[in-house]
Amino acid sequence: MSDTPPDSVVRTYIDTHRAAFLDDLAEWLRIPSVSAQPEHAGDVRRSAEWLAAKLKETGFPVAEVWETPGAPAVYAHWPSEDPQAPTVLVYGHHDVQPAALADGWRTDPFEPVVQDGRMYGRGAADDKGQVFFHTLGVRAHLAATGAPAPAVHLKLIVEGEEESGSVHFRDLVEARAAELAADVVIVSDTGMWSETTPTVCTGMRGVADCEIDFQGPDQDIHSGAFGGAVPNPATVAARVVAALHDADGRVTIPGFYDGIADLTDAERALIAELPFDEAEWLRTAKSHATAGEAGYSTLERVWARPTAEVNGIGGGYQGPGGKTIVPASAHVKLSFRLVSGQDPYQVEVAVQEWVEGLVPAGIRHSITFGAPTRPCLTPLDHPALQSVVRSMGRAFGQKVRFTREGGSGPAADLQDVLGAPVLFLGISVPSDGWHAPNEKVELDLLLKGVETAAYLWGDLAATHRAPA
Amino acid sequence: MSDTPPDSVVRTYIDTHRAAFLDDLAEWLRIPSVSAQPEHAGDVRRSAEWLAAKLKETGFPVAEVWETPGAPAVYAHWPSEDPQAPTVLVYGHHDVQPAALADGWRTDPFEPVVQDGRMYGRGAADDKGQVFFHTLGVRAHLAATGAPAPAVHLKLIVEGEEESGSVHFRDLVEARAAELAADVVIVSDTGMWSETTPTVCTGMRGVADCEIDFQGPDQDIHSGAFGGAVPNPATVAARVVAALHDADGRVTIPGFYDGIADLTDAERALIAELPFDEAEWLRTAKSHATAGEAGYSTLERVWARPTAEVNGIGGGYQGPGGKTIVPASAHVKLSFRLVSGQDPYQVEVAVQEWVEGLVPAGIRHSITFGAPTRPCLTPLDHPALQSVVRSMGRAFGQKVRFTREGGSGPAADLQDVLGAPVLFLGISVPSDGWHAPNEKVELDLLLKGVETAAYLWGDLAATHRAPA
Repeated sequence: MSDTPPDSVVRTYIDTHRAAFLDDLAEWLRIPSVSAQPEHAGDVRRSAEWLAAKLKETGFPVAEVWETPGAPAVYAHWPSEDPQAPTVLVYGHHDVQPAALADGWRTDPFEPVVQDGRMYGRGAADDKGQVFFHTLGVRAHLAATGAPAPAVHLKLIVEGEEESGSVHFRDLVEARAAELAADVVIVSDTGMWSETTPTVCTGMRGVADCEIDFQGPDQDIHSGAFGGAVPNPATVAARVVAALHDADGRVTIPGFYDGIADLTDAERALIAELPFDEAEWLRTAKSHATAGEAGYSTLERVWARPTAEVNGIGGGYQGPGGKTIVPASAHVKLSFRLVSGQDPYQVEVAVQEWVEGLVPAGIRHSITFGAPTRPCLTPLDHPALQSVVRSMGRAFGQKVRFTREGGSGPAADLQDVLGAPVLFLGISVPSDGWHAPNEKVELDLLLKGVETAAYLWGDLAATHRAPA
Repeated sequence: MSDTPPDSVVRTYIDTHRAAFLDDLAEWLRIPSVSAQPEHAGDVRRSAEWLAAKLKETGFPVAEVWETPGAPAVYAHWPSEDPQAPTVLVYGHHDVQPAALADGWRTDPFEPVVQDGRMYGRGAADDKGQVFFHTLGVRAHLAATGAPAPAVHLKLIVEGEEESGSVHFRDLVEARAAELAADVVIVSDTGMWSETTPTVCTGMRGVADCEIDFQGPDQDIHSGAFGGAVPNPATVAARVVAALHDADGRVTIPGFYDGIADLTDAERALIAELPFDEAEWLRTAKSHATAGEAGYSTLERVWARPTAEVNGIGGGYQGPGGKTIVPASAHVKLSFRLVSGQDPYQVEVAVQEWVEGLVPAGIRHSITFGAPTRPCLTPLDHPALQSVVRSMGRAFGQKVRFTREGGSGPAADLQDVLGAPVLFLGISVPSDGWHAPNEKVELDLLLKGVETAAYLWGDLAATHRAPA
């Protein structure tokens, strides 16, 4: 790849600047930017301002705090000198999950500690560490090319509400679509298979969710006097949940699978290549058996197949002991993970029609959908994906394999609004403890992230030129 | 019926003593004997002492307060002079439901008001009024016979915890079984079909209830990362509830219907005789459609058929909005109304085995049963039932029809422990507002209750002689 910087220069640059880079990251981690806790609103703002200043210092000509009705985001832009260069938008977030010593932290979650090649602290992996490797990454890239600006038009959008639902993110992206416009989106908020198996994530599932409320009698009524002679809304709620799947674990909602392409043999082979250990996976899942759609492996089920799940159900008396009533109402919360080919809005219509068919006379129901998230999936032969794989391969000196994410994220909003393919570059590993006590990042992997970013801009510039 | 007192003497006696009887009842209603509210414990005791004193005054040689670990009961005994006479035990309760002006009472619930031929006040119908008609009833009976003691050995047991679950009643009955021993139990704690259709209740359903807890993952887990690949305990809970009934509304638990005799044509005809208005029944049920076991009418469903009902269900996230989790746990509360022929303990075993068959690998479950209540049903040709029907017919001057109760009550404990048939003598009507604001009793009906009791002891003595 002609335009990519020589590896030795990159590595030397990273070695030289490693200590300062880690000091800076530690400084950022000291800011408890917990977006879910109102008392930390000032810290989230401080985190945004700190990052904007740091990006200025890194060399980004534009680095500013963007207001939202909630927590502020940070936007930065470093144009390439080549007007034909592709535009890359990096996504991450600067807010973190709540953390307190009492939760089981061995050290203060907001006083980072480096030990055994790891940095411990809230946000070390999710997501400050993974945002921050782009600062040293772009500098290493410039060191190798000798150019004053990156080989791509490099943009960053670092939101401040990811850990509290990204509630204002889509609006922000829509309002700022012109500034955020990009040919490729790189999301640095995921991870790899393991310390020893570097991987690139090629997609996330979408999600549609709803609450269905069922109303029966006008109030709880006596089950002795009336039970067995009037419809029970909790029974109807249960029937809806029970009817979601057939005996093979397939979702029974007519039209649910419309538009989905079967997994190809090649895709299945790539998933099967990963060193999957079911017992270990179950430990991570804190579960005691696998289950699911017949004919698919566990990884296929969570990465590549759509699912229907009941997230909550409630109705009638839930206190201690018994209460002989026919409940007045019941409700269920359902969510559907969606894969490439599925349209969340079509799924919503299908769910609505299917539920209507299950509700008997005497029960009223209403259904409320949350804002859906579309699935995103990068084709394996996409040139930008190949750039990421090559850059990671150079940094790690290992074959890079492919994963997907079972979850859903604001990445899909970027794909949706900006119309750009979304790629994932993350170096976190499952043991990093996202959202858990003693979150850490492996420093070796963090610096491989820096190195990958350093190679990536050159590689992308070479393979992914914008139309003239 | 030879030994029954002449009707005119009874009526004259009642007319003469009516005012004093109502004054006494009002005095009793002023005692707020709310057993469910600890702050009224003293009032419940005062109510018991008031009643015991009043029964002494009425002429019962034995009238005493019986302690329980909870609220006290009242026991009274007035032996007949004829040692061959049958022993009758009347059951009622002196505690009442909570009541407060703020609930929608037009007058103070504990300051009884007589208006338009009704006495308003908490407990007027449930159950003080219906206990109290036995005091004037036995005096009218004696006035007519001229004897110093009733024609039957007359016992009363008036408990003080019926409105808070009769938690100590069965223990009390077991401990005092020798004193409570009777040939016939008369329960005065039910009602009639309506003001214009006097009826005798011939049975109550039994009840068995359980809570089933389902445990899946060790904690709530991410539905994106793991959903669709591990079993969801809320899905299992829903499947258990959904599987309770088949498409015909029949309970699917193997063995559930074992031992039940089909309704005879005669029994169905008696139920069909009642002036049933579905729209009015639905208003009372605060429900918007009838539903249930195919092939049975609404009254047959609630009176004469066993049912399975979900009283509560819960699991996962039940707050506002969505939360994409696979819940760690879920639970359901089920209750089963039982009819004559069903054994609650066999039903419990059947439920347990059936649930086991529905729980997949990876889900643990536990099932906890409450104390069951047996069903009771008096055969239509039982001589004591015929006595009640005849006595009511004389008092009301109308054909007396038959009802059942869909609910379950401590009456079954008396049947169970004492081995005596349980009969029901109640004059309350659906409009009396049990457990509701503005509870009242119709004074005309209350005095018909007095009159019925006055005839009943003679009738029972004549038809239901104890073995020599």
